[in-house]
Amino acid sequence: MLRYDLGTGEYKNWIVSEVEFNPHHLGKCESIMALGNGYMGLRSSTEESYLGQVRNLFIAGTFNQFDEYEVTELPNAADVVELDIWINGEKFSLEKGKIIHYRRDLNVKTAELIRHVIWENRRGEQFEFLFRRFVSLKNLHLIGMKMEVTALNSDAEIKIGSGINGQMTNTGVQHFHEGEKRIFDKKYLQLLQKTTESKIDFVFNTTHRYAIDGEEIEKDPRMVMGRRKVFIETTFQLQKGQKLTFEKISNVYTSRDKEYDHENYSLEQLREDSLNNLKEEAKKGYDQLFAENVSEWAKRWKEMEITIESENDFDQLAIRFAHYHLIIMTPAHDNRFGVAAKGLTGEGYKGHSFWDTEIFILPFFTYTFPKVARSLLEYRYNTIEGARRKARANGYEGAMYPWESAFTGDEVTPEWGAVDIVTGKATKIWCGFIEQHITSDIAYAVWQYYQVTGDQDFMDRYGYEMLFDTATFWASRLEWNEEKQEYHINDVIGPDEYKEHVNNNAFTNYMAHWNIQTAIRYYEELKQHRPEILEKLNEKLNLDDAYKKWTEKVDKIYLPQPREEDLVIPQDDTYLTKQIIDLTKYKNQTQVGTIFEDYNMEQVNNIQVSKQADVMVLFYLLENKFSQEVKRANWNYYEPKTLHDSSLSLSTHCILASDMDDRELAYELFERAARIDLGPNMKSSDHGMHTASIGGIWQSVVCGFGGVRMLDGKLRINPKLPKQWKKLVFPIYWRGDRLEVTVTHETLHVKKVTNENEKVVFEVFGTIHEVSDEKTIPLT
Amino acid sequence: MLRYDLGTGEYKNWIVSEVEFNPHHLGKCESIMALGNGYMGLRSSTEESYLGQVRNLFIAGTFNQFDEYEVTELPNAADVVELDIWINGEKFSLEKGKIIHYRRDLNVKTAELIRHVIWENRRGEQFEFLFRRFVSLKNLHLIGMKMEVTALNSDAEIKIGSGINGQMTNTGVQHFHEGEKRIFDKKYLQLLQKTTESKIDFVFNTTHRYAIDGEEIEKDPRMVMGRRKVFIETTFQLQKGQKLTFEKISNVYTSRDKEYDHENYSLEQLREDSLNNLKEEAKKGYDQLFAENVSEWAKRWKEMEITIESENDFDQLAIRFAHYHLIIMTPAHDNRFGVAAKGLTGEGYKGHSFWDTEIFILPFFTYTFPKVARSLLEYRYNTIEGARRKARANGYEGAMYPWESAFTGDEVTPEWGAVDIVTGKATKIWCGFIEQHITSDIAYAVWQYYQVTGDQDFMDRYGYEMLFDTATFWASRLEWNEEKQEYHINDVIGPDEYKEHVNNNAFTNYMAHWNIQTAIRYYEELKQHRPEILEKLNEKLNLDDAYKKWTEKVDKIYLPQPREEDLVIPQDDTYLTKQIIDLTKYKNQTQVGTIFEDYNMEQVNNIQVSKQADVMVLFYLLENKFSQEVKRANWNYYEPKTLHDSSLSLSTHCILASDMDDRELAYELFERAARIDLGPNMKSSDHGMHTASIGGIWQSVVCGFGGVRMLDGKLRINPKLPKQWKKLVFPIYWRGDRLEVTVTHETLHVKKVTNENEKVVFEVFGTIHEVSDEKTIPLT
Repeated sequence: MLRYDLGTGEYKNWIVSEVEFNPHHLGKCESIMALGNGYMGLRSSTEESYLGQVRNLFIAGTFNQFDEYEVTELPNAADVVELDIWINGEKFSLEKGKIIHYRRDLNVKTAELIRHVIWENRRGEQFEFLFRRFVSLKNLHLIGMKMEVTALNSDAEIKIGSGINGQMTNTGVQHFHEGEKRIFDKKYLQLLQKTTESKIDFVFNTTHRYAIDGEEIEKDPRMVMGRRKVFIETTFQLQKGQKLTFEKISNVYTSRDKEYDHENYSLEQLREDSLNNLKEEAKKGYDQLFAENVSEWAKRWKEMEITIESENDFDQLAIRFAHYHLIIMTPAHDNRFGVAAKGLTGEGYKGHSFWDTEIFILPFFTYTFPKVARSLLEYRYNTIEGARRKARANGYEGAMYPWESAFTGDEVTPEWGAVDIVTGKATKIWCGFIEQHITSDIAYAVWQYYQVTGDQDFMDRYGYEMLFDTATFWASRLEWNEEKQEYHINDVIGPDEYKEHVNNNAFTNYMAHWNIQTAIRYYEELKQHRPEILEKLNEKLNLDDAYKKWTEKVDKIYLPQPREEDLVIPQDDTYLTKQIIDLTKYKNQTQVGTIFEDYNMEQVNNIQVSKQADVMVLFYLLENKFSQEVKRANWNYYEPKTLHDSSLSLSTHCILASDMDDRELAYELFERAARIDLGPNMKSSDHGMHTASIGGIWQSVVCGFGGVRMLDGKLRINPKLPKQWKKLVFPIYWRGDRLEVTVTHETLHVKKVTNENEKVVFEVFGTIHEVSDEKTIPLT
Repeated sequence: MLRYDLGTGEYKNWIVSEVEFNPHHLGKCESIMALGNGYMGLRSSTEESYLGQVRNLFIAGTFNQFDEYEVTELPNAADVVELDIWINGEKFSLEKGKIIHYRRDLNVKTAELIRHVIWENRRGEQFEFLFRRFVSLKNLHLIGMKMEVTALNSDAEIKIGSGINGQMTNTGVQHFHEGEKRIFDKKYLQLLQKTTESKIDFVFNTTHRYAIDGEEIEKDPRMVMGRRKVFIETTFQLQKGQKLTFEKISNVYTSRDKEYDHENYSLEQLREDSLNNLKEEAKKGYDQLFAENVSEWAKRWKEMEITIESENDFDQLAIRFAHYHLIIMTPAHDNRFGVAAKGLTGEGYKGHSFWDTEIFILPFFTYTFPKVARSLLEYRYNTIEGARRKARANGYEGAMYPWESAFTGDEVTPEWGAVDIVTGKATKIWCGFIEQHITSDIAYAVWQYYQVTGDQDFMDRYGYEMLFDTATFWASRLEWNEEKQEYHINDVIGPDEYKEHVNNNAFTNYMAHWNIQTAIRYYEELKQHRPEILEKLNEKLNLDDAYKKWTEKVDKIYLPQPREEDLVIPQDDTYLTKQIIDLTKYKNQTQVGTIFEDYNMEQVNNIQVSKQADVMVLFYLLENKFSQEVKRANWNYYEPKTLHDSSLSLSTHCILASDMDDRELAYELFERAARIDLGPNMKSSDHGMHTASIGGIWQSVVCGFGGVRMLDGKLRINPKLPKQWKKLVFPIYWRGDRLEVTVTHETLHVKKVTNENEKVVFEVFGTIHEVSDEKTIPLT
């Protein structure tokens, strides 16, 4: 059971708490309370083991492919978290004995996981435990752990097994060669692993410190090496009332780390550096290392914090929770890595990057940490050769981005999914072949980043090339329909993945059109104003030819229009002709995908049912192409047919509801969206966090209720505060200037706190404003 | 807690029982109660899962090498045993609620595992479970399971998840590519796996049947496919007092099966055949399939049964338990496979064959199932090319058998072991390099088999070649010592593995000498009587040259002699000069290897301490080379220095004690040897059964107390019944004739029940007897 209201004082609305131990629902808090820093993600499994636990440690970018039948994935690295705790000869487990007190907190402000337990064993002996843990934002390699055990009403012998366990797998898949195991000075444990295909070295080091009643003690441990495993066993004698403090400081380095991924790399150097680092850090002890982590987080909070004064305290916590996860999911330190669809919190989606990044997550960074946004877009630039290989392999030109992307940018979507209940075979996953809108999604994000930040250097180095080569892909992808005398895009999957092999998915067609149109615009602009830039790109991309094709084709692309009778835009050529069934059984279920227990994919394909927003996303991205009337009509048509079986769906609907000025509906959808991971569904996060949904929470607040939008290169702020909120304060960066925006029901207050530009111009409900220091605009 | 006395009536002394569930000691009964048939071995993990369980299913001969850093091992195949049982919304686990009754039996007569549990959940609802399981000796591919659940005092909703789980690993090492998953007719589940290196296809099929109160019911299950996993979920409503019967019949086939391991093999055929087999078999239902298994076992029991009338019923059970494991450990169906050091009951020793087979296990088969013994020796013949490669790689000639052998006969001993407490590194394992006596052990077994069975066909086809080429190896291995003018064998490990890099290990030298001497004898015999056989071998092995070398060298081999002062034979050149320490702390411990918690291997090497019998084994194998006086003197010297840290040690000492006519000591050692797996040490069998020790139990009974020995090609029976035994009845085959031997304190009765030869000649305490029907010989 989760509580959101247990933070007090400084930590009010900063703490997510679990107040009951439930061994059936371990996955929930393992995911939502995961720790991380973008370099690594550590699932919050408990120190002691339970059946059904999933222990995961992922290091961003360290992809490995087990064999030619499986796609590459982030390997589950060695575990340093497990402690094997024996008390008076019995193994400590909360499933046995009696739990007198239980509470586990994730403090998102300090990024610490804290578990406080009072437990009585079957003999009536009581013990108080305080477990603390963090993954440092200061030293990205570092994991700190501290356990305090107090023997409350008896003497106790406490034996602890602790070390480094490389037996971990990804659901049974072993990605590592076993490397050397070593114990230095009976004190520093080291384990090496090397990925089997990508040949990335991992080095783990760990060390321990012990104190009784605060007094540090030395211990000669029993040393053990097993297969892929090195650990020590230490035994302590506590007298009644005494407290054992057990600290474990660990680190992990890999040869994929930027600092080591070069020609002169040597494993010996990596081992030495990492061990030295551990020795240095461990001297400081948990408390100091943790303090360093907290002050690093404080810097982030200063930059990103949003204040929501709401009837429901949960809302404030929800946005902080989103912020926390946005930071820990993002490999901000390295532009060769993307954000994974489950972050670094679970095996789901194998660490791959989807459109989730560009459409759902990136806007937070673009508006808040533009440098990180740039790094994430550089990841797409760094993988563009993979996208070009994909285009060529499919008979197209330009850059065709993969639906799922890992380290190289080659397509890595798996081919087989869940059971087909009709055939008894695995269902074929078509996304890697025909879910193609990702290419324009990335182009869109490039453009959005450029417009919001004004980062011309990025465009010159990477952005134009990406815009042009994606347009070239689309131009080659278009299919001429002789009868209609227009270009179609056939046999695709749009955002709504319950419709496969459709022709002219509205979102896909509009975005392809936008992509080519935008390329044309920038081609012409560069030609006129910066021919030297164009020339360089021309040499590489043969742009003059490409431009010819773009301009010949762009106006002949078929863009589905609202039907006259009801203004509904056909999601694709056949959606509106399909069977309509009663969806009550499948809508608003705690479990997603329940429709597949009655229908297989082929059957679902023939029903007017959508997994998620499709036309709605189009309205959001190309907002000013569609009237409020059209938006409302399509909402009314499609939403009842949308199961929200994708976590991407609710936040989009929430923003659209704000756009349609339906604040009540928007708030209701926000409350649902904010609970996708944080809420009471105890199974939905088992395979990891829904990172796009986390990005969606931020967008719902800032772009939905805050009304922030970049439209045709201009800033617009149309706030739509829900009645439950009294005040909303958020920061955004616009063209290098930090704005602090305060929204109440009465006013919009914009404060420009930096001086990159003399003034910032923005539109509020149709009126143009400008601000050079601060400005209050009445909203009534 | 184990009980041995719960079998009654027909099953008295046939049943090993566990009467208390202890989650800390799962490994014990998983191993000792393992099921199998030589084709496969299934560890007896419970249906419901527990932390610390080790689920193992091994298929003989299906070795796979994970990578170039690890040696090949038997891969842990998919699990079909686990059932995920939910009762009224709570997962069934004996760690929760209350156990009202618990008993698990392995019935070694019927080879069935039966678990009877009455359990109360935390709400006070009581359920009675009866789990039954067998691995068929009739259909080697088949695993049958049956569960009955009765709702004793409430209605109940019972949900069962069941299927095939290919996520299994060997301690984290995944040996399989994921293959296709399929559900046919919502009823037959199929999972394919393929080993990654050896490319062996595995096909698993499983199906279920359900009945309530004996009435069969049909159910449409929920079908689920996960990664490497296919299963179904079925939900049943029981009214108070009703009983659910849940049957699961599974099978496994592999492309290494003799029937499929040929050029025209197709996976499609394997899938079809295996599925058809399952469909046919499943129709019969558990009870009939089990009955077929029981009657197959009855045939084995008829052949091998031994009666022990003892003060201690345990002794009768112990020999039956040994018989049971000797059958299930041995791949009698296929002469390409050997017996593994842990049988098919655990990951320990990776499924490799050691000298354990020839010296400890094979005698049982040679004397009881000569055909199986031949098959096991053919395995060594089939792998002789590996032995030749090993010889060449080490600069020797002939066949140098690997210390550890898998499918090809190449050396597969791992290189690194447990931690070195001084250096903190893994300890180097030298056995694969220098524990070389295995080669003469195999030669010895060939000779023993030949002499006991008189199987000339075996010798002609395989035996002579093995004897000659092993002798050639030894001749090339000998090192000339100029000073002493004799041949030495330096830098070896003898049977006592606590002495590495020693020169002139007595056992090694004597057995090498014996090996060459025996080859000379047969060369000369063939030359004289069957030159055509010799000629054929000569072409292949260049025997004339070899013979020259044998004869030149054999008499110059240094054979350590008893010291004049105390008749002690030096175990090697330096043993007797090493430090003597107080070993009390390490001797007779429940855990083995405790000396390594205080010393590392280098230090142990310099202490007069032995892991196991060394000179004793020599006395056993070459019995009539040594006087009783010498045996006793060496016993008195070495035994106090022997920690029996190898499970091979006690049975050898037991037999030697019998040979020395110390019946009390022999019985005491028998009791200890018989408890290596079966006894109260709850951790020692975690990694699998000690199969050599199991073979040793049989040898202790038949060769020790029964006094059976083949000496220089003659049968000798010198029974030495311990005072606790009234009668011992055992069968042996001698030159094709079955003898039934009955020993009491007063008489030896030998009955010849077959008529292969007119009479059988044997010696009893120095007197020659012969038997053509039966004969009673007084012993007093």
